[in-house]
Amino acid sequence: MADSGFEPLLQLTVTDSSMLRKHPKDITSIIAGVQKYVKLADEESALFNSFLEPKSVPRRTLLAKEGEICRQSIFVVDGALKSFTLDKESNEHVISFALSGWWIADMYSLINQKPGMLRIESLADSELLLLSKQNQELLYERVPKFERFFRIITENALVASQQRIINNLTLTAEERYINFMEKYPFVLTCAPLHTIASYLGMTPEFLSKIRRRLATRS
Amino acid sequence: MADSGFEPLLQLTVTDSSMLRKHPKDITSIIAGVQKYVKLADEESALFNSFLEPKSVPRRTLLAKEGEICRQSIFVVDGALKSFTLDKESNEHVISFALSGWWIADMYSLINQKPGMLRIESLADSELLLLSKQNQELLYERVPKFERFFRIITENALVASQQRIINNLTLTAEERYINFMEKYPFVLTCAPLHTIASYLGMTPEFLSKIRRRLATRS
Repeated sequence: MADSGFEPLLQLTVTDSSMLRKHPKDITSIIAGVQKYVKLADEESALFNSFLEPKSVPRRTLLAKEGEICRQSIFVVDGALKSFTLDKESNEHVISFALSGWWIADMYSLINQKPGMLRIESLADSELLLLSKQNQELLYERVPKFERFFRIITENALVASQQRIINNLTLTAEERYINFMEKYPFVLTCAPLHTIASYLGMTPEFLSKIRRRLATRS
Repeated sequence: MADSGFEPLLQLTVTDSSMLRKHPKDITSIIAGVQKYVKLADEESALFNSFLEPKSVPRRTLLAKEGEICRQSIFVVDGALKSFTLDKESNEHVISFALSGWWIADMYSLINQKPGMLRIESLADSELLLLSKQNQELLYERVPKFERFFRIITENALVASQQRIINNLTLTAEERYINFMEKYPFVLTCAPLHTIASYLGMTPEFLSKIRRRLATRS
């Protein structure tokens, strides 16, 4: 969801006090993401924007917790988030990352409005836009083309999730790490070693060994 | 996508020669699945139905192959399918199952119309309905509420895929097998041991050991 080839929509015809709190950059990147898949009229962009709540968080802020009901989807304007789960021994298992331009939520909890299994936490200082479930439903009702947008980004997320399963089953640990470096260079700069190892399904010691091996080779 | 609480829509107002080839049971189960999430007028059900191609396949029929472009979504009226990938040593890794009432496709290939990575094969004699990508796009155009339906079932598939990742990371092999027995009792009756072991990420020998241990305990 990069914003190349997109002309920012700054001439909004609906004004709303909540919009004034947002920085134009926020509006540009989130609307660019939507416009990649559906064309929005200015009033539709403005309505969408009025449904979003901006939030700035420092690194290591908890945004969702297991056992609680997830009531919003989160769009990352700038920064990085991770979702993870804790096993019985309180070991962290990273499920996904969300970088600038990506959406993240505890989907199970958001859909079913039941207590979730995931924590969502910022890996770096982050600028976010929150879309509450209630506003998301209102959005579908008032601008049905958002069904299409969220269908498409959910399809993409499903492909990514299945690809991760395939990679875990078929690639060597080293191949998985090389893939990761290509896909998540920003995470390499802000996440601790154990977080990256956890996402890749290996111990931090084993990841260190792979890194040393790759460093010697290059 | 069970069809409980659904009154079959048999009074179709549009007639189409392709509909006549289908058994009413096919129509009932697929439309029941859609009606769980969106209300369809009779004409909309009939149009949807006219886009579907029925297909009966015996056990072990290949329906999609890696390296080929996936051109359709498959709905299972009756039977069971699996999707899997082969690694460099031709070991089979099962990615997902689809039972009666479920949809399956190589989503990466279907969305991007690029060569896929998955094989899809029947585990049992199966009755299927095929929705080509072209017809699916036409459907979105002519009955936009299908965007909502496919958004919701894709969200459910994403939750299931993430749940599988969480289970693999946090549950013991025995817990994963017990979960599997609850979720896929039909697969237990028709899939060979190595297929189930592959889905659970363990060797057939290890799965046999777990089965023996559970049998002794019960």
